[in-house]
Amino acid sequence: MENYNPGTHILSTFTAPQAALTDMVRCADFFSGQVAALGLTAVGTVYHAFDNGGFTAVVCLVESHISIHTWPEHGLATFDVFLSNFRNDNGDKVQGIYRSTLEFFGGTETNLQTVMR
Amino acid sequence: MENYNPGTHILSTFTAPQAALTDMVRCADFFSGQVAALGLTAVGTVYHAFDNGGFTAVVCLVESHISIHTWPEHGLATFDVFLSNFRNDNGDKVQGIYRSTLEFFGGTETNLQTVMR
Repeated sequence: MENYNPGTHILSTFTAPQAALTDMVRCADFFSGQVAALGLTAVGTVYHAFDNGGFTAVVCLVESHISIHTWPEHGLATFDVFLSNFRNDNGDKVQGIYRSTLEFFGGTETNLQTVMR
Repeated sequence: MENYNPGTHILSTFTAPQAALTDMVRCADFFSGQVAALGLTAVGTVYHAFDNGGFTAVVCLVESHISIHTWPEHGLATFDVFLSNFRNDNGDKVQGIYRSTLEFFGGTETNLQTVMR
């Protein structure tokens, strides 16, 4: 059996303005753009808006997944990006998606965990 | 603004038999049963099978998400369960889902990370 080559999983909590935390359509466009720009392959998505304007988004990828849960009532989001190294070393892409997401949301990181798995 | 009450996110890698790592339908039934049994609320799912029999599954919940990526070619899976404490303290449910998942897959844990976030 082939050896498994662990990939990088970033887990972040960041604060952000209400407008970004409640605009699911704009976030969907952003994630789609990231996936295309980085040559990743989406295999399914979930976008679900809550009554208070918060939303949950997951983009499943051949390379693993991106997810976000926004909490406008708390002014923050919990974000994940996990890319396996199935075909390529995707460590730089994980960091790039995270930096771009923070910038997109106008976010301020309050907690960051990086796990090799 | 209300204070945010962090929830538990378990990230696990476990080895498991090929039969379990390639049976997406059985896994979907299992996850659905867990969600129902624990009184969680699903808001969307993705199930995607790969050509080699591996699969990716994400169950988005009001309470956050469950995800698994199986790698039959490596004999392992990368599993996540993250439940916020939006309405209740869900810490015990996170541990319960993880234990049940390991048992369901006949898995042996090789890496476990528990993040409060």
